[in-house]
Amino acid sequence: MQKGKASLLFERPVMIAGAASVAGQKEGEGPLGEAIDVVERDPMFGAPNWEQAESTMQKQTADLALEKSAVHRKDIRYLFAGDLLGQLIATSFGTVDLEIPLFGLYGACSTIGEALCLGAMCVDGGYADHVMALSSSHYATAEKQFRFPLGYGNQRPESATWTVTGCGAVVLTADAGERAREEAGEDVPLPGFYGPGRGRGVRITAATTGRMVDMGTKDSMNMGAAMAPAAWDTIMQNFRDLDADENSYDRIITGDLGEIGQKILLDFMKNEGHDISRIHMDCGLEIYDNQAQDVHAGGSGCGCAAVTLCAGILPRLLDGSWNRVLFVPTGAMLSTVSYNEGQSIPGIAHAIVLEATGGERG
Amino acid sequence: MQKGKASLLFERPVMIAGAASVAGQKEGEGPLGEAIDVVERDPMFGAPNWEQAESTMQKQTADLALEKSAVHRKDIRYLFAGDLLGQLIATSFGTVDLEIPLFGLYGACSTIGEALCLGAMCVDGGYADHVMALSSSHYATAEKQFRFPLGYGNQRPESATWTVTGCGAVVLTADAGERAREEAGEDVPLPGFYGPGRGRGVRITAATTGRMVDMGTKDSMNMGAAMAPAAWDTIMQNFRDLDADENSYDRIITGDLGEIGQKILLDFMKNEGHDISRIHMDCGLEIYDNQAQDVHAGGSGCGCAAVTLCAGILPRLLDGSWNRVLFVPTGAMLSTVSYNEGQSIPGIAHAIVLEATGGERG
Repeated sequence: MQKGKASLLFERPVMIAGAASVAGQKEGEGPLGEAIDVVERDPMFGAPNWEQAESTMQKQTADLALEKSAVHRKDIRYLFAGDLLGQLIATSFGTVDLEIPLFGLYGACSTIGEALCLGAMCVDGGYADHVMALSSSHYATAEKQFRFPLGYGNQRPESATWTVTGCGAVVLTADAGERAREEAGEDVPLPGFYGPGRGRGVRITAATTGRMVDMGTKDSMNMGAAMAPAAWDTIMQNFRDLDADENSYDRIITGDLGEIGQKILLDFMKNEGHDISRIHMDCGLEIYDNQAQDVHAGGSGCGCAAVTLCAGILPRLLDGSWNRVLFVPTGAMLSTVSYNEGQSIPGIAHAIVLEATGGERG
Repeated sequence: MQKGKASLLFERPVMIAGAASVAGQKEGEGPLGEAIDVVERDPMFGAPNWEQAESTMQKQTADLALEKSAVHRKDIRYLFAGDLLGQLIATSFGTVDLEIPLFGLYGACSTIGEALCLGAMCVDGGYADHVMALSSSHYATAEKQFRFPLGYGNQRPESATWTVTGCGAVVLTADAGERAREEAGEDVPLPGFYGPGRGRGVRITAATTGRMVDMGTKDSMNMGAAMAPAAWDTIMQNFRDLDADENSYDRIITGDLGEIGQKILLDFMKNEGHDISRIHMDCGLEIYDNQAQDVHAGGSGCGCAAVTLCAGILPRLLDGSWNRVLFVPTGAMLSTVSYNEGQSIPGIAHAIVLEATGGERG
């Protein structure tokens, strides 16, 4: 159902049937390490080059998400997926063996938000019973794509973020289980451990789609500043569309603003009369221990929000820590071509409302 | 409504409210020249570099599509758009002034198919009353992105295609007009000249989403061969899902297979028992006069299918030449990075069923 200018309410239950994350060693050594499903010590993932390493990681994550959801590959009707590389090559090669009809997406580091929104629309609208949303990034492919060869050993300013080597995949389902449960008034188990039949589950109840926002930031080593205005724009749109505010959510969690972007966002929100500092988190500040792991301003990349969602956010919705979260993956539309032409870096952010369901609240 | 493994039937009318195309001089001198809305003689579109030229062309096309549809910019709820460049920079900068919530897509030259499918889903599902689908390419940005600097003057083999400088934009609408007309039994005009109130209109009635298909083609100067297997896969899926065959459509129109890709597709289809040679067309063979314009195997690029749709296909559905067309934009997931690593070029194709409505058939 349309709500306001840019938001949708999903009236049919769009349940998360399962989710999986695979990441690299640095991410494994971070605060979320224990909760990441697979931490791969070989940054090449057994592949002959970085790009194929990222594709291998995607394939591994998709397979694991299917396994954890107890959904067969053939039952996934559509795949919504993307990565950071030119022409989505990590995704092209990573998803070819899945043989699932694919909608290739590019929203930079906001891609998992775009994928979840379109996937939820698809399930809510009855266009699919099961879809998968997936996005990935790899430190080495991203540095090669956007910055310098690793061997050059360039210095990173304090405002730079560290691209996450990681992939997150989420299976969404039309959740016949909950509907059956409501009708029968009893506990009908859903396939997958996120189903309400197994206690608590997580549901996507709303989404706010972002637009390109360009406030003129030109520093490719300060992506947080480029994305913060987009996060602010989308969160404010969500508040207006859903008559929401900082009291409507247990947490508002942006994608990869890092320390500098977070400050800008909190300032911008305060100027609008919303103090979200108490409930704001940023995936880029959750996935690493910034001081100990020397990542400077935080983590970033398509994998940052996706891995933190699977390993950090969904578990806390499931264990009862939180009931309602606004998840706002943020993307900076950086390209070396436009950067070298002296252009600014537009940002975009897509917001997803995640709600716990079932269990003691059911 | 789900149909078969990968197809959807749109039960609510998803009407094309209007469409516009803007292209370069070479395209203007081709067979579709007269029907292209704006032919721009300056390949720079007044901008300081090729990428900003492409962005300017996008903006111009979007504005024109709005004008021709008689739909206000603020009434377009979502924009589904993409281009060929790394990180979609033509789209990032081309759409920022529109301020429309954006789903950035990457399906290489199949992007307009992906955009129309998601846009139709969105309108059919009630998630938007109006959306825009848009894609573009520019000869000079594409050569710079994928091949050699223009000044190098490399020789093009006969199998190479010529990237179209062009952009096509289509406004989809929930068509209150037709519903009102059905209820009132009279001619209620729709905004935009494609509406049934003004005679014939064009409606999207079904879509088949493609998957990545990789048969191992490695020649970046023979994109037709890389994409033909994907076109074959999607058309066969459409036939199976919708119980259709070569008699179900007045035309089956692929995106940019060119001469070589067309031969492969026709052969593959014949092997399956379907002779589509009588009704097959390819946008890459429609947009230029291959011999006279020296483009070798044909046209290609995100703009190829999009411009041919707006300037060649929709007009012939509106004038009664055709009633039902299967439009199958095709994409080759080429990247210089994967190419230089010796990888193959996977292809993808998305199919859209376009039907004439209203007028003498209404």
